[in-house]
Amino acid sequence: MSDHRIERDSMGELEVPREALYGAQTQRAVNNFPVSGQPMPTAFIHAIARIKLAAARVNHELGLLDDARSREIVAAAEAILAGHLDDQFPVDVFQTGSGTSSNMNVNEVIARRASRDGVEVGANDHVNMGQSSNDVIPTAIHVSAALAVTSQLRPALEHLRESIDARALELEDVVKTGRTHLMDAMPLRMGQELGGWSSQVGQAIERLDSALVRLCRLAQGGTAVGTGINAHPEFAERMARDLSEQTGLSFSPNDSFFASLASQDAAVELSGQLRGLACVVMKIANDLRWMNSGPLAGLGEIELEALQPGSSIMPGKVNPVIPESAAQAAAQVIGLDTAVTVAGQSGNFQLNVMLPLVANNLLTSITLMTNTSRLLADRAIATFKVRHDHLEGPLARNPILVTALNAVIGYDAAAAIAKHAYQAGRPIIEVAEEQTELSRAELERLLDPATLTRGGVPE
Amino acid sequence: MSDHRIERDSMGELEVPREALYGAQTQRAVNNFPVSGQPMPTAFIHAIARIKLAAARVNHELGLLDDARSREIVAAAEAILAGHLDDQFPVDVFQTGSGTSSNMNVNEVIARRASRDGVEVGANDHVNMGQSSNDVIPTAIHVSAALAVTSQLRPALEHLRESIDARALELEDVVKTGRTHLMDAMPLRMGQELGGWSSQVGQAIERLDSALVRLCRLAQGGTAVGTGINAHPEFAERMARDLSEQTGLSFSPNDSFFASLASQDAAVELSGQLRGLACVVMKIANDLRWMNSGPLAGLGEIELEALQPGSSIMPGKVNPVIPESAAQAAAQVIGLDTAVTVAGQSGNFQLNVMLPLVANNLLTSITLMTNTSRLLADRAIATFKVRHDHLEGPLARNPILVTALNAVIGYDAAAAIAKHAYQAGRPIIEVAEEQTELSRAELERLLDPATLTRGGVPE
Amino acid sequence: MSDHRIERDSMGELEVPREALYGAQTQRAVNNFPVSGQPMPTAFIHAIARIKLAAARVNHELGLLDDARSREIVAAAEAILAGHLDDQFPVDVFQTGSGTSSNMNVNEVIARRASRDGVEVGANDHVNMGQSSNDVIPTAIHVSAALAVTSQLRPALEHLRESIDARALELEDVVKTGRTHLMDAMPLRMGQELGGWSSQVGQAIERLDSALVRLCRLAQGGTAVGTGINAHPEFAERMARDLSEQTGLSFSPNDSFFASLASQDAAVELSGQLRGLACVVMKIANDLRWMNSGPLAGLGEIELEALQPGSSIMPGKVNPVIPESAAQAAAQVIGLDTAVTVAGQSGNFQLNVMLPLVANNLLTSITLMTNTSRLLADRAIATFKVRHDHLEGPLARNPILVTALNAVIGYDAAAAIAKHAYQAGRPIIEVAEEQTELSRAELERLLDPATLTRGGVPE
Amino acid sequence: MSDHRIERDSMGELEVPREALYGAQTQRAVNNFPVSGQPMPTAFIHAIARIKLAAARVNHELGLLDDARSREIVAAAEAILAGHLDDQFPVDVFQTGSGTSSNMNVNEVIARRASRDGVEVGANDHVNMGQSSNDVIPTAIHVSAALAVTSQLRPALEHLRESIDARALELEDVVKTGRTHLMDAMPLRMGQELGGWSSQVGQAIERLDSALVRLCRLAQGGTAVGTGINAHPEFAERMARDLSEQTGLSFSPNDSFFASLASQDAAVELSGQLRGLACVVMKIANDLRWMNSGPLAGLGEIELEALQPGSSIMPGKVNPVIPESAAQAAAQVIGLDTAVTVAGQSGNFQLNVMLPLVANNLLTSITLMTNTSRLLADRAIATFKVRHDHLEGPLARNPILVTALNAVIGYDAAAAIAKHAYQAGRPIIEVAEEQTELSRAELERLLDPATLTRGGVPE
Repeated sequence: MSDHRIERDSMGELEVPREALYGAQTQRAVNNFPVSGQPMPTAFIHAIARIKLAAARVNHELGLLDDARSREIVAAAEAILAGHLDDQFPVDVFQTGSGTSSNMNVNEVIARRASRDGVEVGANDHVNMGQSSNDVIPTAIHVSAALAVTSQLRPALEHLRESIDARALELEDVVKTGRTHLMDAMPLRMGQELGGWSSQVGQAIERLDSALVRLCRLAQGGTAVGTGINAHPEFAERMARDLSEQTGLSFSPNDSFFASLASQDAAVELSGQLRGLACVVMKIANDLRWMNSGPLAGLGEIELEALQPGSSIMPGKVNPVIPESAAQAAAQVIGLDTAVTVAGQSGNFQLNVMLPLVANNLLTSITLMTNTSRLLADRAIATFKVRHDHLEGPLARNPILVTALNAVIGYDAAAAIAKHAYQAGRPIIEVAEEQTELSRAELERLLDPATLTRGGVPE
Repeated sequence: MSDHRIERDSMGELEVPREALYGAQTQRAVNNFPVSGQPMPTAFIHAIARIKLAAARVNHELGLLDDARSREIVAAAEAILAGHLDDQFPVDVFQTGSGTSSNMNVNEVIARRASRDGVEVGANDHVNMGQSSNDVIPTAIHVSAALAVTSQLRPALEHLRESIDARALELEDVVKTGRTHLMDAMPLRMGQELGGWSSQVGQAIERLDSALVRLCRLAQGGTAVGTGINAHPEFAERMARDLSEQTGLSFSPNDSFFASLASQDAAVELSGQLRGLACVVMKIANDLRWMNSGPLAGLGEIELEALQPGSSIMPGKVNPVIPESAAQAAAQVIGLDTAVTVAGQSGNFQLNVMLPLVANNLLTSITLMTNTSRLLADRAIATFKVRHDHLEGPLARNPILVTALNAVIGYDAAAAIAKHAYQAGRPIIEVAEEQTELSRAELERLLDPATLTRGGVPE
Repeated sequence: MSDHRIERDSMGELEVPREALYGAQTQRAVNNFPVSGQPMPTAFIHAIARIKLAAARVNHELGLLDDARSREIVAAAEAILAGHLDDQFPVDVFQTGSGTSSNMNVNEVIARRASRDGVEVGANDHVNMGQSSNDVIPTAIHVSAALAVTSQLRPALEHLRESIDARALELEDVVKTGRTHLMDAMPLRMGQELGGWSSQVGQAIERLDSALVRLCRLAQGGTAVGTGINAHPEFAERMARDLSEQTGLSFSPNDSFFASLASQDAAVELSGQLRGLACVVMKIANDLRWMNSGPLAGLGEIELEALQPGSSIMPGKVNPVIPESAAQAAAQVIGLDTAVTVAGQSGNFQLNVMLPLVANNLLTSITLMTNTSRLLADRAIATFKVRHDHLEGPLARNPILVTALNAVIGYDAAAAIAKHAYQAGRPIIEVAEEQTELSRAELERLLDPATLTRGGVPE
Repeated sequence: MSDHRIERDSMGELEVPREALYGAQTQRAVNNFPVSGQPMPTAFIHAIARIKLAAARVNHELGLLDDARSREIVAAAEAILAGHLDDQFPVDVFQTGSGTSSNMNVNEVIARRASRDGVEVGANDHVNMGQSSNDVIPTAIHVSAALAVTSQLRPALEHLRESIDARALELEDVVKTGRTHLMDAMPLRMGQELGGWSSQVGQAIERLDSALVRLCRLAQGGTAVGTGINAHPEFAERMARDLSEQTGLSFSPNDSFFASLASQDAAVELSGQLRGLACVVMKIANDLRWMNSGPLAGLGEIELEALQPGSSIMPGKVNPVIPESAAQAAAQVIGLDTAVTVAGQSGNFQLNVMLPLVANNLLTSITLMTNTSRLLADRAIATFKVRHDHLEGPLARNPILVTALNAVIGYDAAAAIAKHAYQAGRPIIEVAEEQTELSRAELERLLDPATLTRGGVPE
């Protein structure tokens, strides 16, 4: 018995694996696109299934689809959402630019699964009813990305932020030498420093939230070119409502379906915010790497948890592997964003035809940032130890502390003291005592690093 | 008599052009950075002057700066803002990464100009009082960019949108063949097509507005490392208030000065939104270019205004020069954004040291998008003529119109009709009449292109 | 019986899947890096295996490794190269920046497999002898990329070029209207047009070849920091020779191992050349898409082979899916290149720690361009049909043909004729006959499109 | 008397500044493109002038242009090349995508200047004879970039390399702790470290040279669409020869003018190599910044020359301003390269219409890298002081030195020693003495940092 069965579509017949739930069009796409070997992300396929599920209900409500078909389509879509059919979606990322092959893949799988007990369900006429790939795929991009951000990335970032805040609180009173231009600058507390990271993460979350506003505006209802041909006038609104109920998000039809199909502006925006988040991750990862540097010939401010032997040749070496992984993930997100930008600027007339790329890159970047955030939180931020002795060494001898005297003796006099102290290798307080009329006690008060981290004008 | 005078700073003496208002530190920077030959954008210098003006008032209110000095600093800053001293800021974009040289340039010019009638104003002690380059420069980036967006770019985009809307209204009933994958698709009206552009521009404006939220949070008050050392505890709030009054924007201190100094996240965000706008401009420019293509061997849908001879060799050639200029401006904004991203991911510890680059690129991109938007509006959108005869030709013969029969005869039967019509080169309506039971009148109703642009399920 | 066994390394014990050939360090990496779910590319793992194979031979030649161990390491490496163990390399792309985990993964798999019949082979002491991840991984990047370029990409590009050349020859005499600025310009032959693509592909091959020069310079022998500590003085030369024999390429030690470890300059170069190739692919793909546009409302110059139904809603629609896939692959290569650039500019001191990202992105881009080139060649270039009637229509009526009269009557007079002809919608030859002293016969000769494609100064 | 005169072109009359040497088409472009305010780079205008000069000679040789006109065009072009007319080229970078406005600008200036003593020289008919903007502008991009690379950038890079080599020689014996993953690794000599930079610069020069090969292939002779219409059959070869003689470079006609006009592949390649150079500059700049970090709380390995006060608030602070400037220039080059890539992937049919952008960005990047290289050489590399005491401190205590014992006692035993030494804070040699059978003398020999920098297998 053959491993294949014969299927047909509007272009004719072809062989499909006997057990496959998909049909001719999926198989054509498999044959046409042996490019990357990488199928579309599951989260994207699931978003299409959500659309099919919603459409079956909405078309039924509108009297366009009968009970039985609607019920069976819903059941089949639910089977996809339950993850039972994830191996039925083999179409490559680098396929037709509209993603029609993935839309038809889902249509075919659902149609085959839904056609039973005498009910015959057509991939185009019933599963795809009132839809076009041209509105389904942009909608699936928005729905899958919005879900991935809200259910995966956002919680991971909140977790990262909480981890940072917990350490910031714990390290509230650890004073260290600040660095600007990598040079010794005025002191700050480690709690303040980590507070800066926390604020960065917090505002990155805000940025994602602001991109969600536009991501929640859907193409669904525009059908083939944006006019909504073949869709019921209430279809768009009802679909947005059903998808909102399914997901807990607040979807609505976009103000222009023409814009939704022809552009990928909301995706470019989200990609930009992910890239901004990558910059935050890179900053935190690099600070951690440098704080951990040494142990002897580096900054040696902290010691990251040892997670694995660091070298195949240098015994005993331990490296900051989690921040390195994070930095690479950040670099990749920056790169994937460039590709999304190239896609975003390449639309013509009624359709942007780089949609599968956009879907793949957004979801990949969200996954990278989600997992990276959790790793940074749990295996770097939460577990590093502070090397207090290393921090304290340079603190009081730092000539830059003289900044605190600006208001008292003026910038130029302060500069002269700093220069002298540094050249002579002497403590700043000694030189200041000689060169000003300030008493030792006064200077001790004015130049106390811990006090200086509280800001204000020293008097 | 020499063309130069001798100036000194904390590092010693050097020659400065006799008439220059700036002093030693500016001159050192001029000598140190012969890189691009391009000084910092004037809008950026003016934003620093606004900060100095505000600081002179705030420090005076707080009792830290006397009447005379405050008054003279304010007057000197106002002279800068009036544009009288724009040639006094020669420091190259590619300077110290903190922008200290530009901050000191403004400090020196103001100090020299303000020192008169027996008042002696110090660049560091008075003009820079309560400030550090490390909070001034990030603040100036935010203030200058926010002002440029709100006073330049946003009005230009509103103008562009209005120009599009006016043409969309005028062309509301012009039906044309839609294009997806560049292939003939269902018809739409030109008003709808332009409506898509309008929506894109409208949402690009929304995106800029959402970036402004975070751009209006200022570093000012963080001083050297974010602790606010040497600034009065009320300085940050008062500065934000003064700058708000000066500009009509709603500035406030950022929730973490440490984040404000160490990162450029809000700038990366704005840059990303500008890059998103560039994608919108590219889409509109390319659609215009293609609609205008021909006149004989192109799409020939419109005729752009002839602005200049198009060729040095081909007489009579006229080219779509404004959309081409726009597309190049868009490409440049995408590139400048990459540089801002590289800058944004490169901060270490308490300071990002790619600030002058960030300032320059944001302001350059805003200028490019502002001028481009106005040119597109006034010399392309507002003035193109529609070539109605070219649009009408293919409309009724388009086999894809058969899509309208899906709901009546099913997708597969419709596909067979389309295929036959195309292969035989016959009108779709004739083939449909033969292959279905629908009457000619019925088919004329169902396949009317103008009706089909209204969407809905044909019955 | 447990599914796991206990393994240990210098950090202690942990559980490893019972049947796994890898050991503790691989397992630690699996546990540490649940980031992308994507393991390192097989081609990269194989390149490491080649290095191990070579090292076992070289160390044996140098008297540092005994017969039995050398022989067994070679055999195990060969098993990897035969593809029998591809499931034994589970470490994520986003791992330690040095790729140490992948190096140790290969060391462990080989050591376990090679340890039999009483021979005990150590992952560090024997398989990794004379090596460090810091030279192995950069070497593996160079070797795997050089092999993928020469054995995969280059042949695919040659094939693409040959396909283009074959069609160019066939279409040598098909005259069409040229387009500059998308506007009708002087005529050319389709053979010339395709010749332009062929030249682009040819020079893209040249560029890859020129990058190979530097890609063939290896880090191997630099060991831990570039000094070659723990490697025999002849190790580098001998390794390059062995790898050359294995692959047929001409590897040699780089002139500075310090540069090889600390930078990824050759990888950045290759990535740049791949990105340049992506621009070529994008150009060809877009030209094909536009040539194929229509069939009625587009340029309609060619008809690409129909490969799959184009629309889930529009029956009979056929889209240029192969060029769309190609354009997306090109966009992705541009994006992956940006990530490689971010990686390339981020090295510090003796090691760049974004190596796994660099390896992954180079190999992914090479695969994308390889498969895309073959698809473009076989399913687009080789199979498109020319729509001769569409090409001929506008040819003779094109007013720009007047260019040919420049040398005879001057640019200004020619421009006046073109303008008049276009405005009046009259054939250029008629207007020229009226406005010049040239005879009809003379003009027919001067304005013949086919002749004009031969260049030269018309007389 | 009016400030303007009336000029006319094929589109009619308009006002031009009375004293301007340019004419109507330049003025139209000035009016049409108020975008960036930035005119095309002078080096680009000069390259066009070189083409005009060559064309006047070649057309004369070919008997197409008379003595007087040829002589006067040559003289006018030489006046441009002498820099006397640099203010006559006001057209914005963001102009028509073909650069026709700049070509006509040069044509007009030369025509006006050359028309005297009764000789009448036409901008189109004589100065532009045998040329089109479509071959002139791509040729000018290649010529100007090739000249800027060979006469500006390459010498600056050679100078940088020599400066590095001089310091490397001087610091040949300065041993320091190596860093991989920013962590203490095996020692190396500073001479070796700088040798790595030198090798990077050397190979960057090689890369530029390899790009020059393709940059020296010219579009000239292709005229309007690549067919060479209106140019003499020998024009291309003779032009390449004349331009070669003018410049000392080896120009030749490209193998396909169609490729030369339609693509910007050679420019994308050069841009990629410049971006690769930027990665090299970034690496060196960042190493310098970190080596200089401190003086107390940083790595403190070197002290860069103090060039300017580093802070407006922190007296006595000195920052690594030259490396910071360099890093920003590198970031900008990376960004400008992205824009060139967007341009490079956007050509359609017979012409790429992002040429002015490409020209501007290439020349800007070359300038940035030229000036940056000289500044790095002269104000950072040549003048830094080594802080020997800081380097020596951690050297002997570095537990990683145990690597040298791998060959003697095996990796695992060595790892145990390193771990113990580090945890106990004891010198590695002491622990090794206890835990192995090696004598103190033996260990001193084996663990001597200076010896270890010589590589090889310790015995």
